[in-house]
Amino acid sequence: MTLINENYANLQSSYLFANIARKVAEFQKSHPDADIIRLGIGDVTRPLAPAVIEAMHKAVDEMGHEETFRGYGPEQGYEFLRQAVVDHDYKPLGINIDIDEVFISDGAKSDVGNIQELFSADNIIAITDPVYPVYLDSNVMGGRSGKFKGDRFENIVYLPTNAENNFSPEFPDRRVDIVYLCCPNNPTGTVLSRKRLKEWVDWCKANETVLMFDSAYEAFISSEDTVHSIYEIEGAREVAIEFRSFSKTAGFTGTRCAYTAVPKELTVNTADGQKQALNPMWNRRQCTKFNGVPYIIQRAAEAVYSEDGHRQTREAIAYYKENARIIREGLTAIGLTVFGGVDAPYIWLKVPAGMTSWDFFDLLLEKVNIVSTPGAGFGPCGEGYLRLTSFGSRENTLRAIERIKTLKF
Amino acid sequence: MTLINENYANLQSSYLFANIARKVAEFQKSHPDADIIRLGIGDVTRPLAPAVIEAMHKAVDEMGHEETFRGYGPEQGYEFLRQAVVDHDYKPLGINIDIDEVFISDGAKSDVGNIQELFSADNIIAITDPVYPVYLDSNVMGGRSGKFKGDRFENIVYLPTNAENNFSPEFPDRRVDIVYLCCPNNPTGTVLSRKRLKEWVDWCKANETVLMFDSAYEAFISSEDTVHSIYEIEGAREVAIEFRSFSKTAGFTGTRCAYTAVPKELTVNTADGQKQALNPMWNRRQCTKFNGVPYIIQRAAEAVYSEDGHRQTREAIAYYKENARIIREGLTAIGLTVFGGVDAPYIWLKVPAGMTSWDFFDLLLEKVNIVSTPGAGFGPCGEGYLRLTSFGSRENTLRAIERIKTLKF
Repeated sequence: MTLINENYANLQSSYLFANIARKVAEFQKSHPDADIIRLGIGDVTRPLAPAVIEAMHKAVDEMGHEETFRGYGPEQGYEFLRQAVVDHDYKPLGINIDIDEVFISDGAKSDVGNIQELFSADNIIAITDPVYPVYLDSNVMGGRSGKFKGDRFENIVYLPTNAENNFSPEFPDRRVDIVYLCCPNNPTGTVLSRKRLKEWVDWCKANETVLMFDSAYEAFISSEDTVHSIYEIEGAREVAIEFRSFSKTAGFTGTRCAYTAVPKELTVNTADGQKQALNPMWNRRQCTKFNGVPYIIQRAAEAVYSEDGHRQTREAIAYYKENARIIREGLTAIGLTVFGGVDAPYIWLKVPAGMTSWDFFDLLLEKVNIVSTPGAGFGPCGEGYLRLTSFGSRENTLRAIERIKTLKF
Repeated sequence: MTLINENYANLQSSYLFANIARKVAEFQKSHPDADIIRLGIGDVTRPLAPAVIEAMHKAVDEMGHEETFRGYGPEQGYEFLRQAVVDHDYKPLGINIDIDEVFISDGAKSDVGNIQELFSADNIIAITDPVYPVYLDSNVMGGRSGKFKGDRFENIVYLPTNAENNFSPEFPDRRVDIVYLCCPNNPTGTVLSRKRLKEWVDWCKANETVLMFDSAYEAFISSEDTVHSIYEIEGAREVAIEFRSFSKTAGFTGTRCAYTAVPKELTVNTADGQKQALNPMWNRRQCTKFNGVPYIIQRAAEAVYSEDGHRQTREAIAYYKENARIIREGLTAIGLTVFGGVDAPYIWLKVPAGMTSWDFFDLLLEKVNIVSTPGAGFGPCGEGYLRLTSFGSRENTLRAIERIKTLKF
């Protein structure tokens, strides 16, 4: 009898964005004239930078001629791109990352989802609450969650992250094997201080815990104190895997390129007590189940690091950051409490007293035709919050704030 | 103590193509003037079709303008491409495949590697011997292999596939849960007859076995009797998953696009004896751990189905097929025994008596500077064989045969 992976049965059926899409579609159907503004899903809207477009045209032409055509590339990514990552994302921060510690991929979602394969199904996982759902769901599929009881999985350690602790979670109250941190954070838009990240690295070292550090929103950082890479923290090479992406940095959500750094010092244990480095394991995983990112796309990513490409992509980031400021200050002005939106494209909003986050989602959709994301969709501690994103157009962002100002709370 | 996935320790360290690359690099170093011809790895060399290039330029331009820019696409692929697959790859064969049974991905390697996640680690796997290594290695990582003892994994069922059984393996002599068949075959270049595939489908149905049908080389089929899709066989929708790729069909090895068909009738069992469809499970897997193929690449794949794109890609296939004919007939003329190369880009050669496949690999490299792939690298029953590919240039293919003709066996 062929058996399924029973862990899939533990997955919770409702995927947040699918639910939102359904609600929006139903509303649109019953209100065909409604002018809906979407500030829900975290998707970029600015076009790719001219330097990136130019690099892709050039690479497309190369693929059309025998002399310059490219077949299979290295599974880990072309050296030109890995070297650009090392030279531009790490060296300027004083960080030594070797080229063979950088693995180019089609997305941080893929890497974050796949990395857990390297670990025993018995490992205990800690996630912040609220959280980006992929950390959780990929571990449910991998057999590390146990059953869903009430509003939580029995074997997952949840780290409440909310206004009460200034969005800086406490350490787990028991031993965990792997902890996921996202900074700047999705969904809360907040960051952890350099001091606190040092404490996390030390804690991971002391507890032999692996730190999965998701830095997909790094490009939005403007505060002096906020680290751009976990490897700015002493000791991090021994405990942390870092996930980075061109999705938000350069508008690549539909272009697909990211990378993951796996330092060679990072080891975990075998059942018989030996140390095993994760870098060669990830290399083997990628070589076995992945065939690299399209050549054309890697040339596009490389162009993000060119002088023109850098300037142009920073302009798009500045555009989104200005949207974030407009949302943050607009909502604050009418008495709402907001978090994030300074070093991140997300604004995390406290919903008015007496309402749930889905109540407020419905109210925004029905009264002012704005799509948001209810905090409860990111975990139990997201209840009472709502996420807005700065990825809309300037015009829609301004209109959205004007509309929200018409509401009475 | 953070523990690794111990199954990785069961992987055999030597990856075939890495070993070949090392041997070739060593030879090149000690013979810097040697003019090496590479007929080893199965990588295409013809440039992308002009229609594909044109479609990509157009898509790149779309990504550079706000009005036509694309962010996140559907994880399963854009409808325009899924519909093209249904209309061009299935409808003309009289096969009904729904659009939501087609999942676009970045490669058959990824899909073949990832699909095993849907199944229990206790399932018993059957593979042909010799075999494409990804079927095996992905299941080793997934915990279905047991230990490697002698020259085989203890829990894997190997189906010998060689000249003695006309490259048509017998059914497993015990119950298996999943069987992998690749047709046209990599590495042997041979095909299974329509009659035999019908017997396989019936056998899978009778034994409740899932058939993983890898059809990556379908474009090379020219024999009348050879099926282009497993779904040409009655009953296959209830037992088979089909993997297809643009890699060899349209020279996309460095461009990265493929698809997998998962029919809705295909179910496996839950531990408590319920039937569970695999289609929604694969959809959930892809939505959780994958973010779709780049928009530009999906437009490139769509263009393969256009009138010009089809004609142009068929010209490249004809070019490779003519190379295959040259190799096949050239080697036959000097008394070597060859298989495959009619419906596939691979020629599977019986090595001269008294030599191992690595002996013959070394001889070809050292005496006539030709890189091949030793059959033993694909499994114990590949011993005594050698793979040559038709993906070289016409000139190199002709030169390679002339060189081999100078050898005395």
